[in-house]
Amino acid sequence: MKNENDFNVLKKRALSLLKQAIDEQKVDKKIIPILKIINGSESHYTTSSCAGRIVLLELPSIGDKKNASFLGKWHRPISQEEFSNAAKQAKKGWIWFLAQSPILHVGAKNINDADQLVKLCVSCGFKNTGIRSLGKKIIVEICSTERLDSPVGRDGKLFCTGEYQDILVETANEVLNRSQEKLYILQDGLKKNV
Amino acid sequence: MKNENDFNVLKKRALSLLKQAIDEQKVDKKIIPILKIINGSESHYTTSSCAGRIVLLELPSIGDKKNASFLGKWHRPISQEEFSNAAKQAKKGWIWFLAQSPILHVGAKNINDADQLVKLCVSCGFKNTGIRSLGKKIIVEICSTERLDSPVGRDGKLFCTGEYQDILVETANEVLNRSQEKLYILQDGLKKNV
Repeated sequence: MKNENDFNVLKKRALSLLKQAIDEQKVDKKIIPILKIINGSESHYTTSSCAGRIVLLELPSIGDKKNASFLGKWHRPISQEEFSNAAKQAKKGWIWFLAQSPILHVGAKNINDADQLVKLCVSCGFKNTGIRSLGKKIIVEICSTERLDSPVGRDGKLFCTGEYQDILVETANEVLNRSQEKLYILQDGLKKNV
Repeated sequence: MKNENDFNVLKKRALSLLKQAIDEQKVDKKIIPILKIINGSESHYTTSSCAGRIVLLELPSIGDKKNASFLGKWHRPISQEEFSNAAKQAKKGWIWFLAQSPILHVGAKNINDADQLVKLCVSCGFKNTGIRSLGKKIIVEICSTERLDSPVGRDGKLFCTGEYQDILVETANEVLNRSQEKLYILQDGLKKNV
């Protein structure tokens, strides 16, 4: 019974933090129905979520995410003007433009619950889903594959012209829209099976 | 004991397929020392591996990987000429340029073995490592985070100029080199702990 108690304690704590985050409008509205379904089940709870985002980053060298700074961060499609305005703040280092699909972290009561959730999410198109930790805390990461990761400039200067900037922004918006449409498929799948 | 027998049967089959692949020179030499360490352990075996690659893809629409075709695929750094020559074969649809870090799939004897492998790989910098399936076959996916995923053209025409092509190729090469350097860290970690 110890394990079940642990789960209940962890779930209670996670739900309290989630309530606070929702009150502070820090949770993307598009993902709230999914959080409700997962947290309404007896065997799962959510620990973090992002409904997908578009990001303009400045980083000293490739892969050095620790020292990266955000030039822009949006949880919705953006305009070419927003992209170029954000890029104007760049000073030193690489400028990368990213579109990231939704990501959720979910605690599970036991290994079977985690495994079933992984299989369900993969079948709903979230093919990068997997169990990220076992032990006291069993955590499933739900993730899709759509993404854009482009180097677009260095030391304050963009490499690309206006036309190519349009295409990058258009593509990032499409990555975001497509991956967010898949949230509805996931929502349906979870509703029927969790 | 049934489970252990299953594991042994699966491992034997995987090792036989690996031997064949090595004989046919289908396995990247850089990753073979790691495969040997994992397959030399009692509790793990490898089912697939890639030491990282650079890819030029043509696909009908974003995310439609099923209908994608390779314009170029390299398991080593490339030149700008190789990039532009491969791009010349493009006809219809989106052209994407990708650099992908190493990926390995590893079968584990039991859940504890899988969990320990995940923790070890994450600590060696392979932060996208997770358990992808449980049940009869327990599979860990070992994966890093470095990557490049850029839309670079459409309908046979590249968006980017020669200078930007250089930067994209240079960045892809750096993604590949950096992520492959991490293979040595992983190799050391595995040698001490698996």
